[in-house]
Amino acid sequence: MIWQTIFFGIMFQLIFVFGGNNYPKNINIWPMPESVEYGNKTVVISKDFNLKIGGSKYKDKSSILKDGFTRLLDVITSNNVIEYNFGKVDQSVILQGIHVVIFSEDDKLQYGVDESYKLYVNPKGNPNYAHIEAATVYGALHGLQTFSQLCHFNLNSRKLIVSQTPISITDRPRFSYRGLLIDTSRHYQPLRMIKKVIDSMAYAKLNVLHWHIVDEQSFPLEIPSFPKLWNGAYSRPERYTVAAAADIVSYAERRGINVLAELDVPGHARSWGIGYPALWPSKNCQEPLDISNNFTFKLINGVLSDFSKIFKYRFVHLGGDEVDTSCWTLTPRIRKWMKQRGLNESTAYEYFVLKAQKIALSHGYEVINWEETFNNFGSKLDRKTVVHNWLGGGVAEKVVEAGLRCIVSNQDKWYLDHLNSDWQQVYMNEPLANITNPKQQKLVIGGEVCAWGEKIDPSDIEQTIWPRAAAAAERLWTRSDKLAKDPNDVTSRIANFRCLLNQRGVAAAPLDVPGRAAPLGPGSCYVQ
Amino acid sequence: MIWQTIFFGIMFQLIFVFGGNNYPKNINIWPMPESVEYGNKTVVISKDFNLKIGGSKYKDKSSILKDGFTRLLDVITSNNVIEYNFGKVDQSVILQGIHVVIFSEDDKLQYGVDESYKLYVNPKGNPNYAHIEAATVYGALHGLQTFSQLCHFNLNSRKLIVSQTPISITDRPRFSYRGLLIDTSRHYQPLRMIKKVIDSMAYAKLNVLHWHIVDEQSFPLEIPSFPKLWNGAYSRPERYTVAAAADIVSYAERRGINVLAELDVPGHARSWGIGYPALWPSKNCQEPLDISNNFTFKLINGVLSDFSKIFKYRFVHLGGDEVDTSCWTLTPRIRKWMKQRGLNESTAYEYFVLKAQKIALSHGYEVINWEETFNNFGSKLDRKTVVHNWLGGGVAEKVVEAGLRCIVSNQDKWYLDHLNSDWQQVYMNEPLANITNPKQQKLVIGGEVCAWGEKIDPSDIEQTIWPRAAAAAERLWTRSDKLAKDPNDVTSRIANFRCLLNQRGVAAAPLDVPGRAAPLGPGSCYVQ
Repeated sequence: MIWQTIFFGIMFQLIFVFGGNNYPKNINIWPMPESVEYGNKTVVISKDFNLKIGGSKYKDKSSILKDGFTRLLDVITSNNVIEYNFGKVDQSVILQGIHVVIFSEDDKLQYGVDESYKLYVNPKGNPNYAHIEAATVYGALHGLQTFSQLCHFNLNSRKLIVSQTPISITDRPRFSYRGLLIDTSRHYQPLRMIKKVIDSMAYAKLNVLHWHIVDEQSFPLEIPSFPKLWNGAYSRPERYTVAAAADIVSYAERRGINVLAELDVPGHARSWGIGYPALWPSKNCQEPLDISNNFTFKLINGVLSDFSKIFKYRFVHLGGDEVDTSCWTLTPRIRKWMKQRGLNESTAYEYFVLKAQKIALSHGYEVINWEETFNNFGSKLDRKTVVHNWLGGGVAEKVVEAGLRCIVSNQDKWYLDHLNSDWQQVYMNEPLANITNPKQQKLVIGGEVCAWGEKIDPSDIEQTIWPRAAAAAERLWTRSDKLAKDPNDVTSRIANFRCLLNQRGVAAAPLDVPGRAAPLGPGSCYVQ
Repeated sequence: MIWQTIFFGIMFQLIFVFGGNNYPKNINIWPMPESVEYGNKTVVISKDFNLKIGGSKYKDKSSILKDGFTRLLDVITSNNVIEYNFGKVDQSVILQGIHVVIFSEDDKLQYGVDESYKLYVNPKGNPNYAHIEAATVYGALHGLQTFSQLCHFNLNSRKLIVSQTPISITDRPRFSYRGLLIDTSRHYQPLRMIKKVIDSMAYAKLNVLHWHIVDEQSFPLEIPSFPKLWNGAYSRPERYTVAAAADIVSYAERRGINVLAELDVPGHARSWGIGYPALWPSKNCQEPLDISNNFTFKLINGVLSDFSKIFKYRFVHLGGDEVDTSCWTLTPRIRKWMKQRGLNESTAYEYFVLKAQKIALSHGYEVINWEETFNNFGSKLDRKTVVHNWLGGGVAEKVVEAGLRCIVSNQDKWYLDHLNSDWQQVYMNEPLANITNPKQQKLVIGGEVCAWGEKIDPSDIEQTIWPRAAAAAERLWTRSDKLAKDPNDVTSRIANFRCLLNQRGVAAAPLDVPGRAAPLGPGSCYVQ
């Protein structure tokens, strides 16, 4: 109500009003909000810039908002030494802080949570506060991220300013699922690196960390029900305790990011057998997991039971991709078991995936599976299954036509470890391509860029992810009519975001080189 | 005195005593200390692990030690979730903190400051405190770094432990100058990246950040005396204010690291002329700085005057390398000026360098110059000049024979932007090669690895520097008889240090690939 009064009272002051396909020329917000209106007046950030939450239903008992505000202060102040002598500055143009009003007291982060917000920066006030309104604290955090991108260090006054006020922004995400996959099986990532990735995801308003925890190469996670599983880790220090995994989840959630845990069965699970060799078809044929052994499913049940205590996201990812069943048919015991049940390689694969789905459902999860499961036996999948596309384009159309939900990650564009996919290609990859039926469009819950870890360790994870993940982040966040038709129209704005990441300590790579390559020669961050 | 009593009282308990060329097998300290003695008892880090400085002359008024201790707590606790339930643990084996005794109250950091320390961790006590003794707070900071490398997360107890106590370490650096060059002219590095580099330098006990601030490509630093100089920056945000530069210096000094500022004249200074075109011989021939113009030296004087207010290290670096004088002889005005003074290209170069030296001396600096100045007119250089080798091996011998001091950075081994110089080559590069006279040996004040910035921006600076800079750090820190004769003897220890850097959020590259390349495939941090 207060916000609305201020908002409408100030509308007439706006110099430039933007809508349609136009971009504000001097405001470099990434990803682009739904609507941005701005003027030509400058405000100066106070030394005692502070957070007010009066009028909020939300009481911030867990300090989610307060900590978000502290991070805001950190990123806007850390790249310059600011002078705070305000002797000559008109008090009314000093921005004293941000007044955040949140309508829901609930701070549970879950799929589909309302992430919308409104942000308003007034050119004058007594005292002058910026305003954020949001349904949830997670919308408010997005508002703080946007605000952080409006702050600039002014070289003349040596102060932090927000220029072009009054600024009025309304914003909400286009898709509810905006993911990034990291892979800690091919290379272990220390807690601190994962947290750095989470921090940077929040800058780009990505909201799902798809944690491909285990795979055939290593099993770094502690599973209390089956304590030998992490014998498959690369080494003792390269392991995540339950407490560490829970710490990651909490760290992410406090930044508005859900963690999607993956258990990639049955094809990507060789490392499980280090601790439990009975899971291997045989010592010489170690993948997929032995379908004929009850222990396999008992163990999957135990893992998912332990998962459900750590990973509270609505979804669990059960993999199901790249299943080469030859170890099943080559192992006499398993071949016999299959024959007894009338299963061939194809139906055995289906049998395994569906059985794993049932176990996950029994633990309260909805299941995500890689697209091969849909391609092979889509009609048999649980109707709540979300199909995760990766092989190429055109899959989402078929998935949503079949009435299932879909996440888009076509490898030709959205696999970040494919270094030849440049940011323009990433930007232009449209999840709703060829899907026109609005009901079907809604079944595409979003998309995800994937940083598979074969050649990604802590030394190169950041520059593999950034800035290309940012291109996907705008595609997933920004309303389709606001997206650039030609990616080159947003080059300077994404370059600005890349430099911003650098300023925040994130090793985002140049835009003008393939993948994560080094700069070709000397030059400014803003043009490389 | 207290320390000595404890130290000698416990000597008889030591199980393994190391000296000579042997390394402790289970203690992975990098760089290797002068002496390490250890036992087989484990202590557990308390939840309330704290710092005591009773008995110190040093009062820590500026919180240099306290902040160092806070950083220690951060790095040892941040990579795991620690359980602090000590119900069953014998109180006497709980390490309650570190008692630091510092003998000098002076906290001025300067070339040659005493960096030695002794560290002692007792297996029992009531209460049990680790002990650090040091002449200065900077020695004590090194002691804390060493201590941080002794702490491990124990997977069984979920606690932080120090195993193999009693541990007794005495340590001091071999060289007083242990440098790393960064180059913010070819690519701007944001404050936060520079601070990250400084943090990581402290982990490896490097103590000089050679800041190659400006060069022909850009001039990012504010010079109040000549305020148009930073018009030569790449962009407005890609600039350092005086306050920002001072902040870098202070940040470094509080970590025991001096900042050596460089003004590379006359050959690497094209960007100066963006703001002051009079510095160029002509519009079409822009380097070296116009020797015939008094304004050139007036400006150098102004810059060094401003430098002297920010950069308090005893030395300033005046460059002097790669001077192509053809713009002087091609410009009629300058050719005439040279002729009037009887100068040829070679003596004009000498004239410029010596004149710049005099200006620097007048501001209280001792001068470091690149080796070409010595190679061309060594006998004319100020006798306090430190000659900075870079072209190749064998130069230090000649410099010290001439009675001048030397810093070793031969490019074939210690230029980190030379990606084909692997860590073993870096490790084996001996600054005192072929120098046997002890008096001459003392003239080699140290060495420096150089990360020239043509292809280094914020996206790849860390993995270009690390882990190879660590190999040089041990060469420069560790007593020569403790250095490995064969670098492969220390592979597992440096791999451990690289993984430690990763755990601390530093993007150190794999050891088994050239330069900063990505890992070749999946695998453990400890073997790549």
